[in-house]
Amino acid sequence: MLKELCGDIGPRLSGSINAARAVEWGAAKMNQMGFQNVHLVPCKVPHWERGTTEFAELVQNDERTNLSTCALGGSVGTPEAGITGEVIEVQSIQEVTQLGASARGKIIFFNRPFDATLTNTFGAYGGAVDQRVDGASAAAKVGAIGVLVRSMTLDHDDVPHTGTLSYSKDAGRIPAAALGLVSADRLSDALVRRALGGKRVFVHLTLDCKNLPDEASASVVGEITGSKYSDEVIVVGGHLDSWDRGRGAHDDGAGVTQSLEALRLIKELGWKPKRTIRVVLFMNEENGGRGAEAYAAAAKSSKQKHIAAIESDSGGFAPRAFSCSLPVAKAKTLSKWLASLRKFEIERIDGGGGGGADVGPLGSQGAVLFGLEPESQRYFDYHHSDKDTIDKVNPRELELGALSLAQLAWLISEQGLPR
Amino acid sequence: MLKELCGDIGPRLSGSINAARAVEWGAAKMNQMGFQNVHLVPCKVPHWERGTTEFAELVQNDERTNLSTCALGGSVGTPEAGITGEVIEVQSIQEVTQLGASARGKIIFFNRPFDATLTNTFGAYGGAVDQRVDGASAAAKVGAIGVLVRSMTLDHDDVPHTGTLSYSKDAGRIPAAALGLVSADRLSDALVRRALGGKRVFVHLTLDCKNLPDEASASVVGEITGSKYSDEVIVVGGHLDSWDRGRGAHDDGAGVTQSLEALRLIKELGWKPKRTIRVVLFMNEENGGRGAEAYAAAAKSSKQKHIAAIESDSGGFAPRAFSCSLPVAKAKTLSKWLASLRKFEIERIDGGGGGGADVGPLGSQGAVLFGLEPESQRYFDYHHSDKDTIDKVNPRELELGALSLAQLAWLISEQGLPR
Repeated sequence: MLKELCGDIGPRLSGSINAARAVEWGAAKMNQMGFQNVHLVPCKVPHWERGTTEFAELVQNDERTNLSTCALGGSVGTPEAGITGEVIEVQSIQEVTQLGASARGKIIFFNRPFDATLTNTFGAYGGAVDQRVDGASAAAKVGAIGVLVRSMTLDHDDVPHTGTLSYSKDAGRIPAAALGLVSADRLSDALVRRALGGKRVFVHLTLDCKNLPDEASASVVGEITGSKYSDEVIVVGGHLDSWDRGRGAHDDGAGVTQSLEALRLIKELGWKPKRTIRVVLFMNEENGGRGAEAYAAAAKSSKQKHIAAIESDSGGFAPRAFSCSLPVAKAKTLSKWLASLRKFEIERIDGGGGGGADVGPLGSQGAVLFGLEPESQRYFDYHHSDKDTIDKVNPRELELGALSLAQLAWLISEQGLPR
Repeated sequence: MLKELCGDIGPRLSGSINAARAVEWGAAKMNQMGFQNVHLVPCKVPHWERGTTEFAELVQNDERTNLSTCALGGSVGTPEAGITGEVIEVQSIQEVTQLGASARGKIIFFNRPFDATLTNTFGAYGGAVDQRVDGASAAAKVGAIGVLVRSMTLDHDDVPHTGTLSYSKDAGRIPAAALGLVSADRLSDALVRRALGGKRVFVHLTLDCKNLPDEASASVVGEITGSKYSDEVIVVGGHLDSWDRGRGAHDDGAGVTQSLEALRLIKELGWKPKRTIRVVLFMNEENGGRGAEAYAAAAKSSKQKHIAAIESDSGGFAPRAFSCSLPVAKAKTLSKWLASLRKFEIERIDGGGGGGADVGPLGSQGAVLFGLEPESQRYFDYHHSDKDTIDKVNPRELELGALSLAQLAWLISEQGLPR
C-alpha cells in the first residue's frame, strides 16, 4: 500500500491532482478490503503551488554563492526578478520584534537550531518551529521584505525542509523560504565575518509559488461496524495529504497505510469488535487541518459517540509507546494492556496528553486521544523534504506500528476505557 | 571515530592487515583521549581469506543462471574448476542427517528462513543460524560435496550474508556458501518445479577461499582507574574485528566507538569513578572468540576482580534495554537506575540472562554481565554483508548508546551491584 500511495501516486499536497487521486485510492482500497460504510467527508482545502523557480544566492559585492532553498508552504512569491536585501540573522521572534526600524528593507534570517540535547526530536521541533510558522509575519511587521529559515532538522546536510507558515491578518505577506543546514551555516559564517569588518551580506531570493482559490477535497472513512455497541466509535487514522517535497512516506503515508492495515488485520483474523472501529484518512493536515475540522463537525452532528481516537503521524519507525490524553493516573490503569502490546514493541502508555493534530478536535467531544509514538531519532532527517521516500521506511517497523494500532483499537473496543 | 574505523581502515577480519591497523588505531585513540593503563592483551587468531573467486550458478541442462553467493567464513575452497552437484533442499540439520546415502555426491541447500513473527530479530537469527554454523559438517557426514545456506537475514534482496561456520572434527571439510534471498528462492522454485516433473537441478560452485596459519593479534585495553576501589573493574566493550564484507559499521564498529566514547564522556565530564571503568576492544569475536578467551584468562590471573562487564554488539541503533545476567528479581532492584537511563531511551533492565559473546567468559569469574539492546528490526538487514556500512548508522542513535553505556558503568561504579 505504501508503494501505491508514495510510488504510483506520489506527493499529494492539498488541492493537487495527486491529493484527489489519493482520496480515490483510499476509498477504493477500503472497498476492496471489505470495510463497511465507506464514504467521504468533504472539506474545502487551501491550494498552494510551489511553481518552478526557487532560488537563493548569497551576494557579497561581485561574489555570488548558491544557497540550497525551498519555499515555505503558503508563502507568496517574489516579483519575477526576485528580491534582494541585506541579511539580519536572528535567533527568535522576540529578537526580530526588537529590531524595529533597522529591519526595514532587510531579509530576516531565522537561524535558531534544534536543541539537540532533547532526546525526543519532536520536543526539539516544537522548540524551533515557531520561526517557520510565525517568522514571516513577525518580520513583515518591522518592515522586512523576506524571510529565510534554518530548516527544521537535525541532519546536517544541505537538503531544505519545507512546512507551513501562517500569515497573521495584521501583517503584510512577505516571501519566506527554508535553507538547508549547510547553506544556513554558510550564510551565518558570512555574517560573522561581516561583524568582524568583512563584506556586507545580501541575499537574492526568487520564488514563483502562489496561493490559488480553495479546492474541494475530502477525508476518507470506512469501518468495521461494532457488533454490540455500534454507536460507540473508535477512530484509527493518519493523514492522506503530504508536502510536495519527497513522497510523504513517513509523513504520513506510514500512518495512512498502518491505519488501513490495522482494520484489514482485524478483519483477516475474523475478529468481530463490539464497538465500531473506524479508519479515517484525514485530508489537509499539513496546511490547514480542514479535514480534521470537517470530520469532527460530522461526528458532533451524528448520533454516534466517539469514545477514542488513535493517530499515527510520527513516522513509520519501530513503535515505543502510545501517548494518551487521560490523566497520568488513569492512563496507568491501561498498563494491563502492555502484556499484549509489548509484542509489538509498545513499552508504555503515557498519560497526560496524547493524540495528534487530526484527532485533536474529537477530544472536546469526549474522545480519549491516543498517539502512536515510534522511535523519533530519524524522523526529522526526512520530514517535509525530498528525503521522505519509501526507501527510508523499514517494512517490519511499519508493520509493528500497524499491529500496535490494531491491538489497541481492539482492546478499547472489547474492554472500553476508564471514564 | 566510526568514520576512521570503517572508512579509513575498513573491514578488519581477524588476521588481516586491517585488523592489525585497527589494533594500532584503538591503542592510539585511547592514548590520545588520556585513558590510563593502555595496553594490548595478545591472542592468536584464525586467519581465513576469502580469495577473489566466489561464483555459483544454477545449472539445468544447458540453462545456467547466476546465483548471488559468498563463502561462509572458515570454509575450505573448491577445486579450481569448482564442484557441480545435484541439489537437495532441506530445512534443518535433522533432515540432512535423515537423508543418509541419498545425499552422497550432492550439494545440500539449507533453506529454513528466519521466523519473521518473532519481534526480536536476534531470536529469529538464533533459530536459523545452526544451518550456517553446523550445516557443512552435518552434510559432509552423509557424503555431500558442498553446502549452500539461505542468508541469515529478513531483508528480501539478493545480497549474500557471510558468517562463521564450524567444522566438526569427525567430519570431512566441504565448501559452504551463503545465497542471497532472491537467489535462494530461485533455487527453491527450480526444485519445486523439478518435483513436479521438471528438469534436474544442479549447482556449480567455485570458491577460492582458504585457511592460513594462525596470526598474532590482540585486544586493546584502557581505563579510568578507580579512585577508591581501583581493584574492582567494570568492563565496557565491543569487538574490533569484523567480517570482510561491508565495513563492520553496526557489527561492531558501533560497539567499539560507543565504548571508547563512554569513557571519553566520563573523562570530559570530570567524573572520578570510585571503581575502575575499563574499555576492552576485543579481537576475533566473529570467528573464534580468542580475544575474549585471552582477556578472561588475563583477568583471572590478575589481582583485580571484575564485578561487571557491559557489551555493545547488537548494532548502533536507538537503545531500548539492557540485558542482565542477574536473576530477574535481583535485576528488578536496578530499576531505580531507569530514572537516569530513560534519558538515553533505555526502558528496561531485563534480568535472567545478559551480556554477549565477548564478556561471556568473565561471567564464570563472578562478573555481572550486561548487554546493550538497541532496536533490532534493521540489524540483520546489514549484518555480515556488503550493506553494513557507516551510512546505515544514525549518529544520534549511536550516541544514545554511548551515553547509556557511560551512565550504566558510572552507576555500577558508584553504587555497586547486588550480590
